[in-house]
Amino acid sequence: MSVLVVGSVALDSVETPFGRADNVLGGSGTFFSAAASHLAPVQLVGVIGTDFPLDQLKQAFSSRPIDIAGLEQADGTSFRWRGRYRHDLNVAETLETHLGVFSNFRPKIPAQFRAAPFVFLGNIDPRLQLEVLTQVAKPKLVACDTMNFWIESRRPDLLKLLSHVDLITLNDAEARQLTEEFNLVKAARWIMKRGPKHVVIKKGEHGAFMFTNENVFFAPAYPLESVFDPTGAGDSFAGGFMGYLANTGDLSEPNLRRAVVYGSAMGSFAVEKFSVDRLLEITKADLRRRVGDFHRLVSFVLATA
Amino acid sequence: MSVLVVGSVALDSVETPFGRADNVLGGSGTFFSAAASHLAPVQLVGVIGTDFPLDQLKQAFSSRPIDIAGLEQADGTSFRWRGRYRHDLNVAETLETHLGVFSNFRPKIPAQFRAAPFVFLGNIDPRLQLEVLTQVAKPKLVACDTMNFWIESRRPDLLKLLSHVDLITLNDAEARQLTEEFNLVKAARWIMKRGPKHVVIKKGEHGAFMFTNENVFFAPAYPLESVFDPTGAGDSFAGGFMGYLANTGDLSEPNLRRAVVYGSAMGSFAVEKFSVDRLLEITKADLRRRVGDFHRLVSFVLATA
Repeated sequence: MSVLVVGSVALDSVETPFGRADNVLGGSGTFFSAAASHLAPVQLVGVIGTDFPLDQLKQAFSSRPIDIAGLEQADGTSFRWRGRYRHDLNVAETLETHLGVFSNFRPKIPAQFRAAPFVFLGNIDPRLQLEVLTQVAKPKLVACDTMNFWIESRRPDLLKLLSHVDLITLNDAEARQLTEEFNLVKAARWIMKRGPKHVVIKKGEHGAFMFTNENVFFAPAYPLESVFDPTGAGDSFAGGFMGYLANTGDLSEPNLRRAVVYGSAMGSFAVEKFSVDRLLEITKADLRRRVGDFHRLVSFVLATA
Repeated sequence: MSVLVVGSVALDSVETPFGRADNVLGGSGTFFSAAASHLAPVQLVGVIGTDFPLDQLKQAFSSRPIDIAGLEQADGTSFRWRGRYRHDLNVAETLETHLGVFSNFRPKIPAQFRAAPFVFLGNIDPRLQLEVLTQVAKPKLVACDTMNFWIESRRPDLLKLLSHVDLITLNDAEARQLTEEFNLVKAARWIMKRGPKHVVIKKGEHGAFMFTNENVFFAPAYPLESVFDPTGAGDSFAGGFMGYLANTGDLSEPNLRRAVVYGSAMGSFAVEKFSVDRLLEITKADLRRRVGDFHRLVSFVLATA
């Protein structure tokens, strides 16, 4: 089954303590697609400007099942982000953001994408996320992401969106800001009351929680010896998570847990190199091995005594 | 098998967003003992001043297998700590510290404690931690804790201590400070090179890692809906961890993993009330239930496909 993702396709310039990269492929839609495409066919909807190195994107995605028929090229400049990480790689310092054509983005879902059973509404204006939902047939699962800017400026729309999605992914700071609850268990409960049956709270290097009304699951981030560039880890998490669900078509609790682990595995690969470089080179065997590593990382046997 | 602990026995005054407590039982030795005593007999070595409400401590520990024959009462005032937590309960703000008699503490291990098979050197001057080791017979496992102050002021002694312990527990900031490695995997490797076969890095509300040369294990902190007072969580973790090892006498990797979970469970109870109040009221059934909750929190089944 395929995954439809609506998100940003951008050019990132990143400095980390280990090096720098200029104008490399970035954006939530790009990371999501690179990760999810290891598990399921991806349909990408986004916008780029006339300055975008489209051939480079096509080349990068050439061996992957990513359909970019929904990637519109508009007059103007592409979304560009420039950021820096110091030694605490959990904290990104944004140096520049140029929205460019992204500021006038109105997602148009191509006819052949409208039946996608899994839909991920990347972090864009909640009004546009709602518009996307009017363009798709009844998906099996709709998930959305959001961010501080929309929580502040589009709260009523975001609350409306919540009543139309099955699952939301957001980070711990965003969950606290949205709900005005510091405690994440209470924050998740607050959100579930407003619609989503599942709330995934991402804590960066500290892992991720998945809450449902009856259950809570936690997966750590993998303790890597070298984290190279954390950009895109959260979007790669979402791609691995949704890709695994689309691959299996199974929304049971045990399978959702596995999906969180596949998401965490994709997040752990994403940070090993700049841009989507590592996500594009890993094999099915690498992924299987990393998922096994996650299992060993948290496994313990209850004593029988 | 019994656990010998050398640590502080103090009076804490704590403010949290949920209330305040003045001059309540605190200190690393107190929290450790309250937690460990659910699993094994505890032998406590420490010092209190003439102002200490000894009857209150005896009353608190009356139903627990905690031998306080090593608790010396010295002329002077007791160690007192006053602190505050804001909404981010992971960050303690120290308002006052009075070391009192603790500043001249020279631990004397009573003869009947010297054969303890499990020894925990709480967070005191590494010179004193080394002195304790000269007073005990060959223990099965020696673990130590430390803190920023000793890392800064007693680095050579601390490094010497490392070569004499099997295991160290410290928090993430301390691990980074000690090793000058930001990455925790590298930090753990640095420490293991200097002696300890096991390194437990505590991350407060973000859980704990246990590193060995071949393995890494992670246990999250339990996502409680109400964290009341985080004081003593790390010492309670250590108490649960060492208590479980003493209870089972088994130092295999699977059992060390279970010990980390018992430690996390004790940490999660400690924060539910002020002081050692919650640790003293829980039952074996509460503990078993919480350990089961931890298992459900992280369990997932690898797909067979």
